[in-house]
Amino acid sequence: MELGLVGLGKMGGSMRDRLRRAGHTVVGYDHDPEASDAGSLPDLVRRLSAPRVVWVMVPAGPATRSTVTELAELLDEGDVVVDGGNSRYTDDIANAEVLSTRGVGYVDCGVSGGVWGLEVGYGLMAGGDAADVQRLMPVFDALRPDGPRDEGFVHAGGVGAGHYAKMVHNGIEYGLMQAYAEGYELLHASELVTDVPGAFKAWSRGTVVRSWLLELLVRALEDDPGLSELEGYADDSGEGRWTVQEAIDHAVPAPVITAALFARFASRQDDSPAMKAVAALRNQFGGHAVRA
Amino acid sequence: MELGLVGLGKMGGSMRDRLRRAGHTVVGYDHDPEASDAGSLPDLVRRLSAPRVVWVMVPAGPATRSTVTELAELLDEGDVVVDGGNSRYTDDIANAEVLSTRGVGYVDCGVSGGVWGLEVGYGLMAGGDAADVQRLMPVFDALRPDGPRDEGFVHAGGVGAGHYAKMVHNGIEYGLMQAYAEGYELLHASELVTDVPGAFKAWSRGTVVRSWLLELLVRALEDDPGLSELEGYADDSGEGRWTVQEAIDHAVPAPVITAALFARFASRQDDSPAMKAVAALRNQFGGHAVRA
Amino acid sequence: MELGLVGLGKMGGSMRDRLRRAGHTVVGYDHDPEASDAGSLPDLVRRLSAPRVVWVMVPAGPATRSTVTELAELLDEGDVVVDGGNSRYTDDIANAEVLSTRGVGYVDCGVSGGVWGLEVGYGLMAGGDAADVQRLMPVFDALRPDGPRDEGFVHAGGVGAGHYAKMVHNGIEYGLMQAYAEGYELLHASELVTDVPGAFKAWSRGTVVRSWLLELLVRALEDDPGLSELEGYADDSGEGRWTVQEAIDHAVPAPVITAALFARFASRQDDSPAMKAVAALRNQFGGHAVRA
Amino acid sequence: MELGLVGLGKMGGSMRDRLRRAGHTVVGYDHDPEASDAGSLPDLVRRLSAPRVVWVMVPAGPATRSTVTELAELLDEGDVVVDGGNSRYTDDIANAEVLSTRGVGYVDCGVSGGVWGLEVGYGLMAGGDAADVQRLMPVFDALRPDGPRDEGFVHAGGVGAGHYAKMVHNGIEYGLMQAYAEGYELLHASELVTDVPGAFKAWSRGTVVRSWLLELLVRALEDDPGLSELEGYADDSGEGRWTVQEAIDHAVPAPVITAALFARFASRQDDSPAMKAVAALRNQFGGHAVRA
Repeated sequence: MELGLVGLGKMGGSMRDRLRRAGHTVVGYDHDPEASDAGSLPDLVRRLSAPRVVWVMVPAGPATRSTVTELAELLDEGDVVVDGGNSRYTDDIANAEVLSTRGVGYVDCGVSGGVWGLEVGYGLMAGGDAADVQRLMPVFDALRPDGPRDEGFVHAGGVGAGHYAKMVHNGIEYGLMQAYAEGYELLHASELVTDVPGAFKAWSRGTVVRSWLLELLVRALEDDPGLSELEGYADDSGEGRWTVQEAIDHAVPAPVITAALFARFASRQDDSPAMKAVAALRNQFGGHAVRA
Repeated sequence: MELGLVGLGKMGGSMRDRLRRAGHTVVGYDHDPEASDAGSLPDLVRRLSAPRVVWVMVPAGPATRSTVTELAELLDEGDVVVDGGNSRYTDDIANAEVLSTRGVGYVDCGVSGGVWGLEVGYGLMAGGDAADVQRLMPVFDALRPDGPRDEGFVHAGGVGAGHYAKMVHNGIEYGLMQAYAEGYELLHASELVTDVPGAFKAWSRGTVVRSWLLELLVRALEDDPGLSELEGYADDSGEGRWTVQEAIDHAVPAPVITAALFARFASRQDDSPAMKAVAALRNQFGGHAVRA
Repeated sequence: MELGLVGLGKMGGSMRDRLRRAGHTVVGYDHDPEASDAGSLPDLVRRLSAPRVVWVMVPAGPATRSTVTELAELLDEGDVVVDGGNSRYTDDIANAEVLSTRGVGYVDCGVSGGVWGLEVGYGLMAGGDAADVQRLMPVFDALRPDGPRDEGFVHAGGVGAGHYAKMVHNGIEYGLMQAYAEGYELLHASELVTDVPGAFKAWSRGTVVRSWLLELLVRALEDDPGLSELEGYADDSGEGRWTVQEAIDHAVPAPVITAALFARFASRQDDSPAMKAVAALRNQFGGHAVRA
Repeated sequence: MELGLVGLGKMGGSMRDRLRRAGHTVVGYDHDPEASDAGSLPDLVRRLSAPRVVWVMVPAGPATRSTVTELAELLDEGDVVVDGGNSRYTDDIANAEVLSTRGVGYVDCGVSGGVWGLEVGYGLMAGGDAADVQRLMPVFDALRPDGPRDEGFVHAGGVGAGHYAKMVHNGIEYGLMQAYAEGYELLHASELVTDVPGAFKAWSRGTVVRSWLLELLVRALEDDPGLSELEGYADDSGEGRWTVQEAIDHAVPAPVITAALFARFASRQDDSPAMKAVAALRNQFGGHAVRA
């Protein structure tokens, strides 16, 4: 199958490779001419035969929105656009509307796979009309991991459902990472367990906490057993925040995911204004010493 | 190798089977005569050749302590006792002392495997002297999952380290379960994702949240897609509490594991006294309606 | 001073009384004709001399927005509208714009006081232009508690700052209420403290936790020592959610306020889908019994 | 009334002053001879007429235990010891036993008042036998704030109940402080509220969040509006940890108090091992940059 792929960065570039390995014809476009097959977005569109499929893999937000808007002007009735980036699901509804005025279909697809996707395949969560999703199935089958389709792909619902599922997936990821991280810190603090990396590694098989994340933590601890090369600083990339905001909008208690998000916020603070206020209160009431 | 096994319940019974399949000679004792090979603890000890190995697999707390105390009187110098139950690590130090006065060695061993261990093998975390641990290695190798030894077994440190590692393992498990659970509730609450079980199943391969727990949740959702047969009621079995208490003792922030623990507490309350107080305050200040 | 007051419910009605006691001339309008002085919004505007002041005290959201929009058409250059309701600060910017096209000024004012405000006075947080705020000062002085002005009133910043401060104030309130509530539940659960209401009452003077909320809890416990007449069910009215959302937008960790919000969400659930998932996982892995 | 007072530090010294102002005869002893009235503990006991009252006001833990043990040998039947320090309630049971073998009574008394107690009075929570508590009432009346007795004093239950109530009181204090602190940080982070100290001050009267802690925060912000002189570093003194541990032992969810405790733990870390683990996981999976 032939498709256009806009955005050839860390994710998009690897996806192009995986699609080509599966025998698909991919015309890629990136603002970096070295990575690009096409010279421009219009050129990319020109090089595809109708009805076209264009997969967008650029940063969520303005970049995705402007790419979709530009594609709306370039594409024709019967074409389909897929947004495979980390867009917020609310953007999908807007994107689908922009395209539908031109008769262009829209599918949103959450993609999980990180730097491993090229070899392992990408977990895919799609949202959109059944016909559009069906048409893209050869692409999805090439990108997803080997094995039964439903273990690496879901058509989760209408437009936005793919990114919604991906958002929740990432929210869960925040909680999982933090659970391992708290366990790591406690083992690290204890005097009793003298082989902390070994303890994590021993959970790789048979235990209820075995997981890919565990394997990744074992790898990291094998490289650097005390994680001494790292700073305890963690960015967040949007989905965690959105998950908590959705939880609030739906009155769903989400203490674990939220705690994980807040731990990332705190990790980036040089000093905590809140804890200055606590220090001030302890000093005002109890005369407790403060640090200046 | 020959060993005694005290406690032939859900876990102990399966472990006996797995050990026998591996060619070991297991003399089992349980207060249930139907399950027992030996008629009593003294009988079990008599039926083993010195130097003996006795693996204790009875409920943590008083049952384990009294079994160890009784074994201290029955065993001889050079024998070794293993506590494979879910004991708190502080019990191990006491148990080791009771036995050491008789020259009997002690190894604590955290065991993870649940109802799956018989087939899959058990993740093992051992604490104790190197010589005692080494002597037990054929037993550990039979119980642990196939594959490299260090992916299913660790000698984590001195006496208590095995149960300490297991305690933290279970604390992590609380956090992991709750992270998936919060994601489940949010997907369940959303209108957009119409195939919630399918979304979970699609994470089985390739995604960063793939894990054994995810597979188990997928199984549960395949059996009962809305979990409508279940009550949202979850017990806790000690290790979660101990993990948080250890975290507090070591001044380690553990918000995720603690939130998971508190969610279980709350799940068992018919009504919340705290929320009665909040309702009372809202009524007193703002005249907000209360439910009676 | 003369002013119009739109919305004569629990809050608005009491404010009219307090303003009149202070000697101000208040023309009130409410959709309930029994409470109203004016027959309609246009009638209210007609009955005021220019330059007019109209204080809006209707439910946040659509009701406030439509009232402001209607006032924009009825008022003239030099008039001022105050929104004293619990609007989200983002609404203020829109409201101010609608009015500014007609030369009408806009002040947002967070009001705290509950059912006590009529007698005790209302804590006021205003946002807007200095000149508009200054013009309203006689109204603010009548509404706020006796004592120094800056202990019951602040001009917190430009348009929106008043409601922003009120939002954070309410977020703090969530945390404070929950802190007392958790302490209540723990004392209630302990066997040792036999006079729980007495313990709370003894904190009324001299202790670091003395506060108005404490006094209100003491009142509630005097009425009903075990809070047995109440259900542990607590609504939330928007500001708590907004506070957490703002915290997320600003990457500010807010675990206490968020925990208080989530506790309210949970208090309203008949059963917890998340805890069903936890129960399912415990059953799948460990064979633990579930409740159906 | 005559009493001995052991420990004349920040709290004990002020309490001696307040008791003397009320007309009581206080014989003080401290290891600092400058502060002491008596030359030794035996000397203090000698200088009191039987039946004696000795109030112990030394650091919780070993110092209190050894003082009580020494007093047990010096005192006689009919004497009473009060522990007014911040002891854990579990110590009270042991202390009472040590003394009861000599016929000496024991009362535990939680004391809240900080540096303000000398002038404002101390909030008091007592545990012990009714007769012992009754006998001490003149002392309690002198120490507690003016006003009705039950607004500054409670006989909360048997031995240990006073310190239990004080422990919960302090746990609540953790939550309250953190709630204000989070609100402060959010206002500080917002661009909209330009007068943050003014906003807090405006809550002093009429609002639902008014409290002593609020007044103390207002004082701190008047001294240093951005708290720029302070480091966000907060110690914890035991009661917060004990409160959470009690909550866990009673299966009481206490997310707010726990979050406040964990925030203090985190405030004292130079770097977070947990967040190193999160950074490592993000790097391993997604290739996200880490800080070294």
